[in-house]
Amino acid sequence: MELYTDEYFMREALKEAVKAFDTGEVPVGAVVVSNNRIIARAHNQTEKLTDATAHAEMLAITAAANYLGSKYLSECTLYVTLEPCVMCAGALHWTQLEKLVFGASDIQRGYSIVSTPLLHPRTEVVKGIKAEESKKLINDFFKKIRN
Amino acid sequence: MELYTDEYFMREALKEAVKAFDTGEVPVGAVVVSNNRIIARAHNQTEKLTDATAHAEMLAITAAANYLGSKYLSECTLYVTLEPCVMCAGALHWTQLEKLVFGASDIQRGYSIVSTPLLHPRTEVVKGIKAEESKKLINDFFKKIRN
Repeated sequence: MELYTDEYFMREALKEAVKAFDTGEVPVGAVVVSNNRIIARAHNQTEKLTDATAHAEMLAITAAANYLGSKYLSECTLYVTLEPCVMCAGALHWTQLEKLVFGASDIQRGYSIVSTPLLHPRTEVVKGIKAEESKKLINDFFKKIRN
Repeated sequence: MELYTDEYFMREALKEAVKAFDTGEVPVGAVVVSNNRIIARAHNQTEKLTDATAHAEMLAITAAANYLGSKYLSECTLYVTLEPCVMCAGALHWTQLEKLVFGASDIQRGYSIVSTPLLHPRTEVVKGIKAEESKKLINDFFKKIRN
């Protein structure tokens, strides 16, 4: 039995997304994994930090790079509950990320709406891991704030 | 005589780029202007902060949002010496920036290599302001580190 599956780490990213939900932020969470260890955790904090750039992925990249003492995450996997936006995909390009795993697709704001490949050519992509849970959390959030 | 021209503020962005040059960073500088006042200044610090996301624009956006107490820079102009990359253009989209002024074009990494428009539709773009000085600084930097 494999403990450290993509599902396992995506559950950890979902825990981060729940933290965002509970503090009134669009619920997106991320973790960065190196050698089966979580080296960074983050959730969207654009409201708390009053900063449009404070997406879960951006905060996780900065924390992981700080932990590793390297700008490059070339031996890391980033798990994020929602498909990254163009900004985050551009940031992941600079890090030369080894692998990106995301949950739900974002057909309005996700990086794949852009036809030019935005990620680094070496980055492997896996999508749809725990997509239903990720999407439900976001739908619940928008239902809640619209009521 | 108009004091607060695009050239005036781009000179201030160039001063930031020189600070980057002097500290061994790829020399790109930015300032954010609101009502003819500079509310944020930043230069590329990817090496110093060991963070691939620490581009001049990203640091300037965060500083300006912090100053204004708002995620949105919808009444601001960002001056940057080099054409923003995809990450920075994506970030500027989220801020709903009013106006972007950049110096030199970046034919390899600039956001305009992507055919999909990445900036917010409301963002006015002016390019080529002090492009020669901006480009020379970058060329001098790469000549220096390659020797």
